[in-house]
Amino acid sequence: MALIVQKYGGSSVRDTECIRRVAERIVTAREAGHDLVVVVSAMGDTTDELLGLAGHVSPMPPRREVDMLLTAGERISNALTAMAVHALGTDACSLSGDQAGVFTTAAHGRALITEVLPDRVRQHLDRGSVVLVAGFQGFHRESEEITTLGRGGSDTTAIALAAALKADVCEIYTDVDGVFTADPRIVPDARRLDRLPYETMEEMAASGAKVLAPRSVEFARRYGVTVHVRPAHGSGPGTVISAEGEQPSAEVRSAVTAVAHDRSGAELTVCGVPDGPGTTAALFRILADAGVDVDTAVQQAVRPPGRCGDLTLVLPRSDGPAALAALRERRADLGFDELRYDPSIGKVSLIGTGMRAEAGVIARFCETLSAAEVDITAISTAESRISAVCGADRLHEAVRALHAAFELGSPG
Amino acid sequence: MALIVQKYGGSSVRDTECIRRVAERIVTAREAGHDLVVVVSAMGDTTDELLGLAGHVSPMPPRREVDMLLTAGERISNALTAMAVHALGTDACSLSGDQAGVFTTAAHGRALITEVLPDRVRQHLDRGSVVLVAGFQGFHRESEEITTLGRGGSDTTAIALAAALKADVCEIYTDVDGVFTADPRIVPDARRLDRLPYETMEEMAASGAKVLAPRSVEFARRYGVTVHVRPAHGSGPGTVISAEGEQPSAEVRSAVTAVAHDRSGAELTVCGVPDGPGTTAALFRILADAGVDVDTAVQQAVRPPGRCGDLTLVLPRSDGPAALAALRERRADLGFDELRYDPSIGKVSLIGTGMRAEAGVIARFCETLSAAEVDITAISTAESRISAVCGADRLHEAVRALHAAFELGSPG
Repeated sequence: MALIVQKYGGSSVRDTECIRRVAERIVTAREAGHDLVVVVSAMGDTTDELLGLAGHVSPMPPRREVDMLLTAGERISNALTAMAVHALGTDACSLSGDQAGVFTTAAHGRALITEVLPDRVRQHLDRGSVVLVAGFQGFHRESEEITTLGRGGSDTTAIALAAALKADVCEIYTDVDGVFTADPRIVPDARRLDRLPYETMEEMAASGAKVLAPRSVEFARRYGVTVHVRPAHGSGPGTVISAEGEQPSAEVRSAVTAVAHDRSGAELTVCGVPDGPGTTAALFRILADAGVDVDTAVQQAVRPPGRCGDLTLVLPRSDGPAALAALRERRADLGFDELRYDPSIGKVSLIGTGMRAEAGVIARFCETLSAAEVDITAISTAESRISAVCGADRLHEAVRALHAAFELGSPG
Repeated sequence: MALIVQKYGGSSVRDTECIRRVAERIVTAREAGHDLVVVVSAMGDTTDELLGLAGHVSPMPPRREVDMLLTAGERISNALTAMAVHALGTDACSLSGDQAGVFTTAAHGRALITEVLPDRVRQHLDRGSVVLVAGFQGFHRESEEITTLGRGGSDTTAIALAAALKADVCEIYTDVDGVFTADPRIVPDARRLDRLPYETMEEMAASGAKVLAPRSVEFARRYGVTVHVRPAHGSGPGTVISAEGEQPSAEVRSAVTAVAHDRSGAELTVCGVPDGPGTTAALFRILADAGVDVDTAVQQAVRPPGRCGDLTLVLPRSDGPAALAALRERRADLGFDELRYDPSIGKVSLIGTGMRAEAGVIARFCETLSAAEVDITAISTAESRISAVCGADRLHEAVRALHAAFELGSPG
């Protein structure tokens, strides 16, 4: 008999019919003899609908009140799922984040889990109940305030609970069949991966693969939680993410595992930045103070000494307005000529273990994109990742070209 | 500077536009220098919509989970109202029932408030915040479970908070202009009452006047909380309910204050009940065990000794199915002939202080209904009330006739 933590996303519980199907799956696992803790996201678009209501009453609602508002969404979906499980003759009980002992930092809207003390979860498990826990929410002990973890927080709740309860596995149910070598909607021969090491999944999540939130994978790696990504409707084998992962087979020429892509970035070019010590540093300080998260920066490489050059920054599109406002305000101090802003850029990333050691991977990466006529603004590399910034219009073509060149697809 | 508790019903906050209007009223009171605690019900039909979702996933949802579900409704409306107040430049903070220190019995769905310890409410008031408290919900300390108080519970929350905080007044904002001598939709010349004693308001609430929940008025009387019923949109003077109340003026011949009516009852007739000691008692025991709340019972007065008679019961329509099932199951033991059930009866009540002492009031009550051709099934009396059960089709006529006969309307 295993202890299993399951997590169902919002699209898996978007209406009461879906909730009943989720309940059937829960009861099947329970009847197989397993102890079950289940984290359910808010139903469908509830979170966005609640944020819409908040926008109607306040242009800038206090984050504390946004958290009070949004946590109602998971309370509703978890109570309904508990009822649906109960209706099938299996004891079930729903707990809010604070009742389940999910303690966080004080930062409303982006709190980090500091500790999970799941005493009440264990009590209900010992009584034979399936325990539903509201994801995405926690409790700051000192201020006794309700907090939320930010988007994707329910994955983190599930994995943190699995770590605290020493669960055998954390099953993440999604509307896809598992983790793929590329998005199957873009690359028809993309292959489902049976197993993946944490590091590769972390890079994929950070590079735009939406199946798991980056922070939740980091949590799983840190506490050694085996994560099983499975289809919510259907019975496919899914993908297991653990310390072992998938070793490159002899047939594969490189350690490359997958191609990820991301279209949430924007490109900001500061034209005519005066050459001189401290100007670039001052610019980054201004952006940091404005809460802007710079992903990549490229200084124009070739320019006459002492003359002005261009600085190109890649940042999350959501930070674009704040970055533009902060730089415009300080234009006189910084002495640049103008700002150019492109809100629709793409980023394509090649992900695998020990890629940097593999000779020629970067060269082949660039050659492939060049042959596919994808213009690159910037390239960045990490231990397990090579990324290129390109125009959004060529992004899908870039993904397909890299997937083919590195022979990631299903054979035949 | 006064400490005021305000309560807004669901129809006053049915959309974000209404919430903004409520926020303006709150800010106006705050700017007049008052400390404010505000209880807001769930938006419009939220509670019924959530119960509808529960009905889709379970035929008989556990009460504990229903409470987890429904309490989300007040959390949403209170957080949104706090945001709307904040957007007008006034500090505001929303608290759930447990955060506000509203402790209750363990009975899910019909918990009673045992104690209010509003330490956090006071802290936020001391910091100059308007404090929004989620009504209708509480916390059972021993089990650490979230509870609800049942329909109308937000009135009780507001009055209990006013008592615990020793507030100067508890203002109940509604979609009517105050408490009237009869429902103005039925009796066009019904008169708004300026003041009312607790006892009269309690009888009116128990007899079907919807402006306040009966339990909340009892709470106000017990703790001496002055309640001010006011229109949510508009500036009418409303009705003040306190220990003093409205004394009958010299022009009014009796102490009669108002006519109330109720159409939530059903009539169950047990035909052919064997005459004998214990049969009626056994029947009432069965109904009590089935959780049926019998309002009025009438035994057929005239019948031959030793022969079977009919017993007519008035009960809440919502208890009808349970009553029928319980009696049918025990038909053999009880030996009655058949059950007759009428789910749509009316009850009209005349309410005032010391009415029983007033000679001829009951006689005039019966004469009035008889002249108006209203057939009466049963009559019951209390210290401040006379009620008659009649057909639902003649209920409005009964209300109008009594209102006219006892000269309760506006002069001229």
